[in-house]
Amino acid sequence: MRERNVRRIEPPTACVIIIGNEILSGKTQDANLQFLGHELGKLGIRLAEARVIPDIEDTIVATVNEMRTKYRYVFTTGGIGPTHDDITAPAIAKAFGRDLVLDAIAVQRMQRGRFELNEARLKMAHVPEGATLIENPTSFAPGFRVDNVFVLAGIPSVARAMFGTLVAELDSGGSIFSANVDVFMREGDIAKPLEALALEYADLDIGSYPFSREGRFGANLVVRGLDKGRVAEAIGRIVSTMTELGGPANMGAPEEVA
Amino acid sequence: MRERNVRRIEPPTACVIIIGNEILSGKTQDANLQFLGHELGKLGIRLAEARVIPDIEDTIVATVNEMRTKYRYVFTTGGIGPTHDDITAPAIAKAFGRDLVLDAIAVQRMQRGRFELNEARLKMAHVPEGATLIENPTSFAPGFRVDNVFVLAGIPSVARAMFGTLVAELDSGGSIFSANVDVFMREGDIAKPLEALALEYADLDIGSYPFSREGRFGANLVVRGLDKGRVAEAIGRIVSTMTELGGPANMGAPEEVA
Repeated sequence: MRERNVRRIEPPTACVIIIGNEILSGKTQDANLQFLGHELGKLGIRLAEARVIPDIEDTIVATVNEMRTKYRYVFTTGGIGPTHDDITAPAIAKAFGRDLVLDAIAVQRMQRGRFELNEARLKMAHVPEGATLIENPTSFAPGFRVDNVFVLAGIPSVARAMFGTLVAELDSGGSIFSANVDVFMREGDIAKPLEALALEYADLDIGSYPFSREGRFGANLVVRGLDKGRVAEAIGRIVSTMTELGGPANMGAPEEVA
Repeated sequence: MRERNVRRIEPPTACVIIIGNEILSGKTQDANLQFLGHELGKLGIRLAEARVIPDIEDTIVATVNEMRTKYRYVFTTGGIGPTHDDITAPAIAKAFGRDLVLDAIAVQRMQRGRFELNEARLKMAHVPEGATLIENPTSFAPGFRVDNVFVLAGIPSVARAMFGTLVAELDSGGSIFSANVDVFMREGDIAKPLEALALEYADLDIGSYPFSREGRFGANLVVRGLDKGRVAEAIGRIVSTMTELGGPANMGAPEEVA
C-alpha cells in the first residue's frame, strides 16, 4: 500500500517459527499458524512473517536470533516434548547464550500428572535460565518465555491453551477492524475499479481473494484498518461500485475483529 | 542426527515461499505447503524450509534472492492474479534484475479463455524477461519459471495442477523410503529406548509425533531414509522394542514413499 497523508499507527509486529520436520515433509498439516495469525490480529498485533524450519539445532538458533531482533514478539511451536527429536528448549537456551536448567516449578507442576517422572519427562522441565513458565492447562508440561520469545507446544490444542494464558503479557496494538464482501464476478473484471478504490483508501489494506464455489467464480474483498469509520466507508464504496458492475452478494456485516 | 560411517546421499533441497497477507492474518488456511512437502519428498527432494511473507515488494525480492542461492529449488505460491495486491511477477523480475515483459505465448493461451482480455487480465501475461511458462491446465493464466525459481498460483487446485506439469523439470534425488507405526503409549514412557534406536540408526531420520485419539494418548513413530532395507530393519526393531514395553498397534506396512 502506498502511504497517504493519513495518520497510520504502526501496530506491534510478531513472527511465528514452526519447528518440525513433520510439517516440511508433508506428514502433518500445520494448524497453529492460522490460529496465531487470527488471534494476534484480534489483539492489534500484526503477524509479519512465519517460518517453518526443521529440527536442526543450528537452524533453530540462527532463526530465533534473527527473528527476535527483527520483531516485537516471536512465537515458536513444536519440539518441546520428551523424545530425542524435541530439541527446541536447548536450542532456545543456546540462542540466548544461557544454560538449560531444571525448573523447580515445572517439576512441581509435572508431579501433578499421573505419570512416572522419568528422565525423558524431566527433560520437559528444563528451560533456559531465567525463563518464565507458560501455563499449560491441558497437560502438565509447561511452555516458557525468554525475553520476547514465547515457546509453545506443537499440538494445536495445547498451543491454543498456552496462548490463552499468555495473552495478558502482550502489548496490544490499536484494535483492527475488518469488513468483507463476496462478489460473484471474476477478479479480472473488477481489478481496475478495485485498484482505484485501494489507491483512494491507501490508509487501509484492501485485499482480493478469488474463490470458486459450486462452479461459480468470485472474489472475497476484504478491508482492514485501524479506523472503524474508514473501514465502514471503504466497504460501502466497494459494495456500491460492485453493484454498479453487476452486483455483489453475501456482504458480511462490517465486523469488528477486536 | 549424528552421522555414522554409513553412506548418505544428500538429496536436492527446496524451499517454499508462501506469499500472501491472507495467510498471515489467519483469514485463509494454507493448503499448499503440505502438498508440496509431500510431493517433493516422493521425488527425493528435501523441503528444507518454508516462509510465509506478506504482499510487500521489498520483502518478496529479498526473500527470493536469499532462498534461490541457498536451495536447489524455490517454489512460490500466491500473488499472480489480476488485482492490485498481486505483485509476485514484478517482484520476481526485480529480484533477478530483469524487465517484466508481455509474453506472447501467455497471451495466446489466455485468448483461449472466454473472458475479455482487459488490462487487468493482461497483467497475468507479464513475466520476467527470459522466463519459461508453467502450464496451467485448470484455468488460462500460466505460472512461470526463472532459473531455479518456480512461480505458482495460490489457489490450491491451480497450484497442484501447475506442479504436475513441472515435475519432469526437477532433478529428483534418490528415492526416500518411509515406514511408521502407531504406539499407544505416552511419549514420556518410550523416549529413552527410542533415543537408543535413533542413535543406532543414525543414518535414518526417526521421528516421534504424539497424538490423542478418542481419549487415548500415543505417538506415531516414523522412520525415513534412502536405504529401503535399513528403513525396514529399523521399523522392525522399533516394533519389537515397543512390543516388549507394552505393545504397539496399527503398524503401517513399511511403505515406499517414492
